Amino acid sequence: MKKMIIASTSTIHGSGPLEYLLPTLSTFFKEVNTVLFIPYARPGGISYDEYTEKVSVPFAKINIKVKGIHEFENSKEAIQNAEAIFTGGGNTFELVNQLYKNDVLLTLKNTIKSGTPYLGTSAGSNICGITMMNTNDMPIVYPPSFTTMGLIPFNINAHYLDPIENSTHMGETRETRIKEYHVFNETSVLGLREGSWLEVNNNNIILQGELTARVFQQGKAPYEIESGVEVAI
Amino acid sequence: MKKMIIASTSTIHGSGPLEYLLPTLSTFFKEVNTVLFIPYARPGGISYDEYTEKVSVPFAKINIKVKGIHEFENSKEAIQNAEAIFTGGGNTFELVNQLYKNDVLLTLKNTIKSGTPYLGTSAGSNICGITMMNTNDMPIVYPPSFTTMGLIPFNINAHYLDPIENSTHMGETRETRIKEYHVFNETSVLGLREGSWLEVNNNNIILQGELTARVFQQGKAPYEIESGVEVAI
Repeated sequence: MKKMIIASTSTIHGSGPLEYLLPTLSTFFKEVNTVLFIPYARPGGISYDEYTEKVSVPFAKINIKVKGIHEFENSKEAIQNAEAIFTGGGNTFELVNQLYKNDVLLTLKNTIKSGTPYLGTSAGSNICGITMMNTNDMPIVYPPSFTTMGLIPFNINAHYLDPIENSTHMGETRETRIKEYHVFNETSVLGLREGSWLEVNNNNIILQGELTARVFQQGKAPYEIESGVEVAI
Repeated sequence: MKKMIIASTSTIHGSGPLEYLLPTLSTFFKEVNTVLFIPYARPGGISYDEYTEKVSVPFAKINIKVKGIHEFENSKEAIQNAEAIFTGGGNTFELVNQLYKNDVLLTLKNTIKSGTPYLGTSAGSNICGITMMNTNDMPIVYPPSFTTMGLIPFNINAHYLDPIENSTHMGETRETRIKEYHVFNETSVLGLREGSWLEVNNNNIILQGELTARVFQQGKAPYEIESGVEVAI
């Protein structure tokens, strides 16, 4: 019985970390006292301690304590014994690298599958898909594999950005990058805009937030799905 | 005796493919009749044939024929026998993947080192650095390694983009991404803006084009270098 929140971003413009999600999280984590935090993605290269401290602030507002996975001697047991788990954003390559290096990817997957509530933001959401191949991050480390948890049957493109009209920049748009991905891969991709999240109850996946999301499937034209609707792709 | 042109982009806004570089290329390739083209990066997922045809158009204007590496039975020999070599842009992960799969990365490196003129644009420029870790591309395939040719003593960030003022987007800026890179890696990075290129004569590397370029070094504040100046980083 999976219970997950898979968010495009931790922070929306003009608001504090996780602030826009707090009403949702206070319900989602209502029976939870302590969340296990996985800080491996290290946004801006900050330390595990700094990152854990930083995310403790918004959680304190809903009376939840945060403990970093690096504070435990046995990471696997920390995951298995957690009341709830949160993986924050940063660099997806380094996050996946550390999940493999610490040999906890499978433990995390199985623990979530067995019902431990999970929150992912940005990189922490990418790892819920089949692979991390639709990350926007820079490949600053070489992970042993791009395969991730596969807890949803498609991949996530977090911080999805529409093409910028009248841009003079010649780098690829997000849509072009995902089109190139589908030359080599079959797995569908959901472009989640900042402020959107998925609410997962076992195999039921609902798009939440105010915005639509963009679906990319091999050999098909991309299309939008409405908020509040089941994502059946 | 290396002779290379390492360009940020093949195309600048409002101009045709390679157009802004043609005056430079007609001098650089002045004794060349045929260029060997490496189309592995497949921009937009187009085929090797389509890509080769596309780049033949600007080269025809300076009376140079283009032949794709895929048209040869033996890729290594094609590289070794080439009068000059051009690797075009697209997806760096797929480019590097194919260079390894076809076992030609080392051959390409050694051939350029021995003096065969080389042009790289975008992904074709990324592979001139120590690693491909500063690409902006999406990891749509898993290459056997991120190590590239190391023909210059630093890495390239092509299509370098300054932070966009007043942006509401919460995804990382290019500068933040490179800062995260330097948490894990020592190699310096040159942010090459669209319209800039490096002219390499053996170990002498000069920044060309109208713009400055941005240097990122571990533990130092980023700084700009002027066009026409040697890049000694």
